[in-house]
Amino acid sequence: MPSLLIRNADWLVTQNKARDVLRNSSILIRDGAIEQIGKVSSVSADIEIDAKGKIALPGLINTHTHLSMTLFRGFADDMHLQDWLQRKIWPLETKLTDQACYQGALLGSAEMIMSGTTSFVDMYFHMEDVARAVGEAGLRGFLSYGVIDLFDSAKAKAEQDNTRKFFDYVRNLNNPRIKFALGPHAPYTCSADTLLWAKEFAEENHSILHIHIAETRREQADSQKQHALRAVEYLDKIGALSENMLAAHCVWLTKGEVGLLAKAGARVAHCPVSNMKLASGGVAPLPEMFDFGVPVGLGTDGAASNNTLDMFETMKVCALLHKAHRWDPTVLNAQKTLDLATIDGARALGAENELGSIEVGKRADIILLDSRAPNLAPLHGRDTVVSDLVYSASAANVDTTIVDGRVLMQNREIKTFNLHQVLAESQQAALTLVSG
Amino acid sequence: MPSLLIRNADWLVTQNKARDVLRNSSILIRDGAIEQIGKVSSVSADIEIDAKGKIALPGLINTHTHLSMTLFRGFADDMHLQDWLQRKIWPLETKLTDQACYQGALLGSAEMIMSGTTSFVDMYFHMEDVARAVGEAGLRGFLSYGVIDLFDSAKAKAEQDNTRKFFDYVRNLNNPRIKFALGPHAPYTCSADTLLWAKEFAEENHSILHIHIAETRREQADSQKQHALRAVEYLDKIGALSENMLAAHCVWLTKGEVGLLAKAGARVAHCPVSNMKLASGGVAPLPEMFDFGVPVGLGTDGAASNNTLDMFETMKVCALLHKAHRWDPTVLNAQKTLDLATIDGARALGAENELGSIEVGKRADIILLDSRAPNLAPLHGRDTVVSDLVYSASAANVDTTIVDGRVLMQNREIKTFNLHQVLAESQQAALTLVSG
Repeated sequence: MPSLLIRNADWLVTQNKARDVLRNSSILIRDGAIEQIGKVSSVSADIEIDAKGKIALPGLINTHTHLSMTLFRGFADDMHLQDWLQRKIWPLETKLTDQACYQGALLGSAEMIMSGTTSFVDMYFHMEDVARAVGEAGLRGFLSYGVIDLFDSAKAKAEQDNTRKFFDYVRNLNNPRIKFALGPHAPYTCSADTLLWAKEFAEENHSILHIHIAETRREQADSQKQHALRAVEYLDKIGALSENMLAAHCVWLTKGEVGLLAKAGARVAHCPVSNMKLASGGVAPLPEMFDFGVPVGLGTDGAASNNTLDMFETMKVCALLHKAHRWDPTVLNAQKTLDLATIDGARALGAENELGSIEVGKRADIILLDSRAPNLAPLHGRDTVVSDLVYSASAANVDTTIVDGRVLMQNREIKTFNLHQVLAESQQAALTLVSG
Repeated sequence: MPSLLIRNADWLVTQNKARDVLRNSSILIRDGAIEQIGKVSSVSADIEIDAKGKIALPGLINTHTHLSMTLFRGFADDMHLQDWLQRKIWPLETKLTDQACYQGALLGSAEMIMSGTTSFVDMYFHMEDVARAVGEAGLRGFLSYGVIDLFDSAKAKAEQDNTRKFFDYVRNLNNPRIKFALGPHAPYTCSADTLLWAKEFAEENHSILHIHIAETRREQADSQKQHALRAVEYLDKIGALSENMLAAHCVWLTKGEVGLLAKAGARVAHCPVSNMKLASGGVAPLPEMFDFGVPVGLGTDGAASNNTLDMFETMKVCALLHKAHRWDPTVLNAQKTLDLATIDGARALGAENELGSIEVGKRADIILLDSRAPNLAPLHGRDTVVSDLVYSASAANVDTTIVDGRVLMQNREIKTFNLHQVLAESQQAALTLVSG
């Protein structure tokens, strides 16, 4: 693999422990890992990228999405969640094909690469095809097949088989950027047996267990009715919580439930844009999660409910939402918000030793923003760079996206596939799906 | 003035009364006005723009900003409003110069042009220099000098003189795109005499009266303490409300106050991003304003508190905020949100006969978005175009910006000034200001 030198970035936002922001610094990458940082002017490499005028930062980590649903972007908006699912999304999903999921995943990959996301956690169907698209795109994906047994033991058995089949598929790919994850959909769609099976499978294979928890008030009300327990209390009682768990949403949690997640070592994928758009009500209790030490990452959720996969937008909306909700502008500052999208996101994936910061020895998942744009001017200095990234930057400022030391985009041109073809083919796939 | 033909836009979002979205349509522009819409393939014009692959819509209207404050972008974030003002903003503002305000206004103009804003309402100081910048940029500005008398009659007199001087300056410019507006800062910084004087001046000259009202709870508490009345009740009592009034923020209003605004014919500039970022608490009661028939537009506020001038972002955050706040995804749908940024914004300016929609006879303030981008794919059809604009589009999709039939940007290249020079000079101006 060719070595890569990112030369002389105006600013290098390391996201290391000290949160150092370095001036005029270079990054030397060998075998996909970061070998040297700082003044490396004498070093040469197989490929050089001139980063003058650029801001370098760790690639963003999207901890919850449904990539193939990018095909449903804009298809159904301004609806109540149950209407949205029952009248629009589920009928479409019955018509999904391998090819549609592949096209949707490639389109979503294009959007992620162009908006600076380098790692993501997915849950959906036809996951072999998603893996194929993500492999071609060059992104780092933690991919889970969405398991729904609806408390039917025959269905549970079939879903376990589907999961094992996908597990084998990913193992045979032998692609270090594509990781298998468990995907029991939610406590209200999966039996206790399935949840416990998934937990065991995740522990045995050191995999993330991706699940939806407490997205809506209704889910909590139903849980109370069915189990006389809130959702996380129920999961705790049956022994389904674990440190492999990455729980998306967690909007409607009590402090007690946050405490249970913390005790189990579970992590949270916070999806502010989707929660607001679907009017889930309430706001995920991030400050309490921080207090209890629960690792929290940010997610976009699928483009059907967001409607983008833009983590810059998600960062800003996240900070705005919590400030507004707590009537306190200090409650989620720019640095902590950037942490959520980078190093905290890596922690939520259990990958903080490999991802989430620009440090020697870590994988080279790095993005460059071109700071020579009106929305990033003026740039007041070291103390404001992080604030500029969170409150002023937009996805379109991302100029270069690098995963594992491989350049996926440079000068906003995707290098790993033909964008125009993907746009045309995904448009066709979406129309076929909707009209079919 | 050369005639202009926008040929064959894939989609033309008219924002006319029927909210027609036209397919494969052209727009013929003569003398800065829209002369013809639809199938005009036989017509030729001095300048032609090929709009294949593009979405045409009315230029966005930003009903509240402080353009020169773009120099303060990112300078002070994550602070309580009073800290922010007293420790950071006001000390900087004492150092403002004509040249700094000119540079800041040009930088802000660049950002607006590149994010699809064609009209805006401003309030600040050194307004001759702002007018100069806006004139060069070619934007449509409603400009007010910010009057603050702090209940001192000598200061009031001086501020009236400053206002008259700026009024004369604008009249002498004789630029149809630059309109004078009154700018009494707020009920808590201006005496009743000044407020009444401003009202009379606005009525005589058919000008907007731009003012801040009820941005914070504290303002309402202080008003209760000082006048035993809430802010709008106080303005009503002294006779300061009028149909010329464009009141920014209006976060902390009772239904009774909304009723008083409606009765007076006053309008509101809603600034969701700034209100959330400064953690003003509460949420402006938009549904109640709609019920009472108060015209509402959207504003970004200044880049010091937003931190962008991006109306696409403001549209999306606006819709998200109200859905989340009311636990109802239907409360502000995509169409109404786009209305707020276009035709309703025009109504808030009292300019609905000239601006805010693409209709024959109106001024040609038009933007084109390039739909061939991952974040705008797939495009499901006529029913989803507006939703795509509000929830999926970003400022960077704006390809062409036209004001009064003049092309200010094409292929994302600004035509009216040298962007690189403006970026360099505004960076210098900001550093001088901060270090000076």
